[in-house]
Amino acid sequence: MQPNSFDVIRIPTSGPGDVSGLMALIDSGALEPSSILAVLGKTEGNGGVNDFTREYAVAALCNALAPHVELAPREVKARIAFVMSGGTEGALSPHITVFARSPRPEGAGEGSSEKRLSVGIAQTRDFLPEEIGRDAQIDETIRAVGAAMRDARIDDVSDVHFVQIKCPLLTSERVKEARARGKTPVTTSGYASMGYSRGASAIGVAKALGEIGADVGGSQVLKDWGLYSSVASCSAGIELVHNVVILVGNSRFSSSPFRIGHAVMQDAIDLPALMQALESVGLSALDARSQSRLVNIFAKAEASPDGAIRGLRHTMLDDSDINATRHARAAVGGLIGGVAGTGAVYVSGGAEHQGPAGGGPVAVIARV
Amino acid sequence: MQPNSFDVIRIPTSGPGDVSGLMALIDSGALEPSSILAVLGKTEGNGGVNDFTREYAVAALCNALAPHVELAPREVKARIAFVMSGGTEGALSPHITVFARSPRPEGAGEGSSEKRLSVGIAQTRDFLPEEIGRDAQIDETIRAVGAAMRDARIDDVSDVHFVQIKCPLLTSERVKEARARGKTPVTTSGYASMGYSRGASAIGVAKALGEIGADVGGSQVLKDWGLYSSVASCSAGIELVHNVVILVGNSRFSSSPFRIGHAVMQDAIDLPALMQALESVGLSALDARSQSRLVNIFAKAEASPDGAIRGLRHTMLDDSDINATRHARAAVGGLIGGVAGTGAVYVSGGAEHQGPAGGGPVAVIARV
Amino acid sequence: MQPNSFDVIRIPTSGPGDVSGLMALIDSGALEPSSILAVLGKTEGNGGVNDFTREYAVAALCNALAPHVELAPREVKARIAFVMSGGTEGALSPHITVFARSPRPEGAGEGSSEKRLSVGIAQTRDFLPEEIGRDAQIDETIRAVGAAMRDARIDDVSDVHFVQIKCPLLTSERVKEARARGKTPVTTSGYASMGYSRGASAIGVAKALGEIGADVGGSQVLKDWGLYSSVASCSAGIELVHNVVILVGNSRFSSSPFRIGHAVMQDAIDLPALMQALESVGLSALDARSQSRLVNIFAKAEASPDGAIRGLRHTMLDDSDINATRHARAAVGGLIGGVAGTGAVYVSGGAEHQGPAGGGPVAVIARV
Amino acid sequence: MQPNSFDVIRIPTSGPGDVSGLMALIDSGALEPSSILAVLGKTEGNGGVNDFTREYAVAALCNALAPHVELAPREVKARIAFVMSGGTEGALSPHITVFARSPRPEGAGEGSSEKRLSVGIAQTRDFLPEEIGRDAQIDETIRAVGAAMRDARIDDVSDVHFVQIKCPLLTSERVKEARARGKTPVTTSGYASMGYSRGASAIGVAKALGEIGADVGGSQVLKDWGLYSSVASCSAGIELVHNVVILVGNSRFSSSPFRIGHAVMQDAIDLPALMQALESVGLSALDARSQSRLVNIFAKAEASPDGAIRGLRHTMLDDSDINATRHARAAVGGLIGGVAGTGAVYVSGGAEHQGPAGGGPVAVIARV
Repeated sequence: MQPNSFDVIRIPTSGPGDVSGLMALIDSGALEPSSILAVLGKTEGNGGVNDFTREYAVAALCNALAPHVELAPREVKARIAFVMSGGTEGALSPHITVFARSPRPEGAGEGSSEKRLSVGIAQTRDFLPEEIGRDAQIDETIRAVGAAMRDARIDDVSDVHFVQIKCPLLTSERVKEARARGKTPVTTSGYASMGYSRGASAIGVAKALGEIGADVGGSQVLKDWGLYSSVASCSAGIELVHNVVILVGNSRFSSSPFRIGHAVMQDAIDLPALMQALESVGLSALDARSQSRLVNIFAKAEASPDGAIRGLRHTMLDDSDINATRHARAAVGGLIGGVAGTGAVYVSGGAEHQGPAGGGPVAVIARV
Repeated sequence: MQPNSFDVIRIPTSGPGDVSGLMALIDSGALEPSSILAVLGKTEGNGGVNDFTREYAVAALCNALAPHVELAPREVKARIAFVMSGGTEGALSPHITVFARSPRPEGAGEGSSEKRLSVGIAQTRDFLPEEIGRDAQIDETIRAVGAAMRDARIDDVSDVHFVQIKCPLLTSERVKEARARGKTPVTTSGYASMGYSRGASAIGVAKALGEIGADVGGSQVLKDWGLYSSVASCSAGIELVHNVVILVGNSRFSSSPFRIGHAVMQDAIDLPALMQALESVGLSALDARSQSRLVNIFAKAEASPDGAIRGLRHTMLDDSDINATRHARAAVGGLIGGVAGTGAVYVSGGAEHQGPAGGGPVAVIARV
Repeated sequence: MQPNSFDVIRIPTSGPGDVSGLMALIDSGALEPSSILAVLGKTEGNGGVNDFTREYAVAALCNALAPHVELAPREVKARIAFVMSGGTEGALSPHITVFARSPRPEGAGEGSSEKRLSVGIAQTRDFLPEEIGRDAQIDETIRAVGAAMRDARIDDVSDVHFVQIKCPLLTSERVKEARARGKTPVTTSGYASMGYSRGASAIGVAKALGEIGADVGGSQVLKDWGLYSSVASCSAGIELVHNVVILVGNSRFSSSPFRIGHAVMQDAIDLPALMQALESVGLSALDARSQSRLVNIFAKAEASPDGAIRGLRHTMLDDSDINATRHARAAVGGLIGGVAGTGAVYVSGGAEHQGPAGGGPVAVIARV
Repeated sequence: MQPNSFDVIRIPTSGPGDVSGLMALIDSGALEPSSILAVLGKTEGNGGVNDFTREYAVAALCNALAPHVELAPREVKARIAFVMSGGTEGALSPHITVFARSPRPEGAGEGSSEKRLSVGIAQTRDFLPEEIGRDAQIDETIRAVGAAMRDARIDDVSDVHFVQIKCPLLTSERVKEARARGKTPVTTSGYASMGYSRGASAIGVAKALGEIGADVGGSQVLKDWGLYSSVASCSAGIELVHNVVILVGNSRFSSSPFRIGHAVMQDAIDLPALMQALESVGLSALDARSQSRLVNIFAKAEASPDGAIRGLRHTMLDDSDINATRHARAAVGGLIGGVAGTGAVYVSGGAEHQGPAGGGPVAVIARV
């Protein structure tokens, strides 16, 4: 089988509606629009319920790409997976990471015998408000992860290093609609629904990859913190009502110049895990050559639900002015920014069932 | 001359009014109340104008210590230097650091030939609202730093590694009072006044230590970012109308088991500077022995005023929901927490003229 | 039986620790310290979990009053009911209302035949974390309301116009403590626990006054919004672990120069209900004489849980930057401030089971 | 001269990107797209620097209207004046008000002899960052207001009742750009720049309408609070770099079924002024017929810069968690919502030189 070639490009943005960097790459011929598989971005909203920078960014990208892929703006989303994660607190810098796939031309030289970075995408059906955070969302996510693995041509679950999911949340409107039909959503709080949606999606990833048993179900979401995926990264948003999956791993059917690896941070200040993730792709901190080979780091951050980090109290959960997700992104973003030497890293908040309680997965993509 | 002995104790707190940890040390005999020289704390308020956790913590400490030092509560502040810095965003953990000084008994063995940690304190007179951020505040700070050096028995400015200042801010009330007298404060914004007050205080430290020329004055405060102190750490608060100085360095007249060193972070993600500060007192990151010898790290954090870190845009200054000081503390707290292995470190926001623009001094106290 | 005389005094404050206005009244002889029954205040914190202005205000009042009532500071709370409600958003102005009771001297003239303002107080036992928001809190509240009615010498529930309750909340610490004992609190979110605590307390008031059936219990708290009290006003805070009750009504055993009345706002913009409450004590809006006779207005505010006011969407519940309680206090405070001609009115957030969903009780005290 | 006919339609929105209500009116034939002159909306962002809901809403409207007016999306803004004001705190409800103008067909009956509502629009050139808040912005605004009066066919300045201006703000990026050219913007704070831009624009309106002398200039912006316009309403946003003017008054060349009137609130709780504005177009509060004839109320809100309302302290300016503009909109929105019986009213924050300090203009449009 002919290997695929992948490109991974990180592009800074000057605002949620800024598509100029991407358009410049297309206009210069450096990026073939039809090869774009997925766009994973950090926008500068609050990352909460009323963060409209995510849907604005997706709308701007769809409008800009539509003529290049010969689709109407509303059809672009069905072809390219867009995942925007809100919140660039502290040192974090708004940017998008573009994943592109193209068939490698015959006779273009030997592929590496080593497995190389490969990406697959998939989408679930739309969810009803009452399905969010429950079995329906878990089960559909399992199916979508399987489809994304096949799309990425990865057979072995141990080659999957990062499964990014964008999932829906509940608004007052959606809750009201469900109730009008006699249904009870898992929560009536918009902010709380983001956690349920991320949690159920992560449980879905963990089941799909065999990280937890097939008997785990919706009743354990946000209950049993011992259940988690080591590679899931879930981000909830107001701009969609289904799950979008971007799965990244290493495949022998890829001839890309990149590799991905991961580790699991046990808490928000787990510097050794971060070092281990870097080393898994041959990098180290504080090293100029490492920094030039680094493409991006992808991490989940959360406030430890027991209110403490290594036995010392944190105040993230008791702060009625700033949501805990914003605190956690800022803290983990500062740590990763220090190691990466740049704030343009992907740190996403709300790590329910994504890594252990208070911690989260961290994946690194590097040029080989 | 008989050397002094110093103790430095870090105590976690369960809330801004919590004095139980300090009281337990006193009750157990581990800490002699009359030896307490200064208390430097992180409280969990917003660190802004309306952060009353600072004055509440000081009031609680004064009430609790008063009977032990045989003073009325309101007199305790004249004897012990209290500096509370608000804001424990992200991984940061509320705590106080107590500095205690006692004469070393004659014949208690040889002092080290090496210089050891020594602490001195001083206070300025009260400031009028219109003096804040201007020459009067600078000049009084210079005098107080000199007094604190003498109190710490440090002759050489290169032995001064950390000068903590608590300084006042302007409220609507104070602005109104000044205007009623026909005076114009440097700003009418309470939040902005915190920057002016910290900036003028830092310029005062820098002049006192010969870091900048004697010709620098109030007109350059918050204007010329090239002027800064490498050891000043200033924190503004609603709870006082004068400056309090806690100066920490190494002195040959100290027989304490601690040393202090410092470095200067060039930006919010300057991990190498942080490593250098640790190494200056014989520590390294990721090392259990280092962590057991570490007493505390003291750092200033701020959003780079040019809106970028290493050329990439940050969003701290354009965020109308969360003040930039909170963002910066969270980010730098995450990085230092990762290196220290604990969130109970002292990271204070607003580093105007404290280190270069966007960066800040970082000091480390370690057990020898 | 000898009638009691009551005084009700509204005192502006310059900060949460400001007791100077109250002390001036005592020093001038205008207020006899031993007559102080209750202090009901608005402080300028965020009104959320980490609002320490409430406990700071109570601590300052206890310290200041202690020598005047010949008690240790910590014993003052057992004698005087202190209720601080955080949050003075928008036009609201921080202040305290002092309720004082003194026996009317024999032969001091005929009392009015009309019922006059009377106040009673009571306290429940401390609650375990897992009791908050559940039957235990309801049942203890019923008992305390009965005790407060007797203390106010009011027999008829229709003479009760305002029942202010201060109730506890859950912090991460308290949740952890309960779990360590194998107990499950009603929620793990500190902010959410405030709603449960207020809701259960209000249900307790409604049962005590016969407003709802004796069969209503903990399972209906925050579930059945049709159940509510028309006079309850509950405020949660981090500074206590039991319920404090201040009950205000009209009694024939009072000779005070004040009367109280109330109405129920159906939603946050219910101006007619506000007018009706004013009229019940002989006042009207826009009238100088009314404004001079007005002592204070006491109201509850909340965001309508269905996300709409009179069919039009509000955004309070979907705002991840500002909690809905802050939004609602600001809005209702603006409306009441406009009618009262002053921002020094008592508007408290979180009206779960206090008035209909999205509305709340409003009481008015006027000089006869 | 043939009179114009005007339509004014208020449309609720379900989010900043929601154009469905407007599209439904067009699709049903109730609104002729080519007649749309201006769209004035409230979106649900924070109303601050990083409120992207304004630009998102304008982008969505331009995209939706483009095919109907046979222009490219980017050209629509040159033809229709879009002004989005961020912030629907408290009871406020997101909505847009569409102003449409069409020539009245010959022989369509006599116009009223009474002056009727008329609308005109204009735009200034783009501003350089250093021009904002200064003479250049004032002078260009004067010219644009004159053009808008002519467009509205209003000769007499006393017939102008509402001049809405959308004006730019400074971001870190824009400040940096100016400095690179050696220019110094009036402030480096994005949030503060909003005040300067609104203030200079309002001074421009006041000069254009002869409300203040021709000698007033940029140096008095945000300094002399005695200078103000009684009809200006200015709103700053990140989404434009010039001023857009929508001017509304009554004209004898209009045959519309609406009239507009206004009054000036002296402070945030000035209920009598609000009643006076209603009465100027024949309405009263608390009256069902008034409410059915009311089209919309347009008001400016701000925190009194002296920190007090009628001598009592407010806390809006000292709150480091919530910007004063959000507080003020919530409070004034609650008051106007109470009088209007609906939260879908236009209350905009930041009333620098728009009405007296702490107050603001309030205009009412009613069906005759």
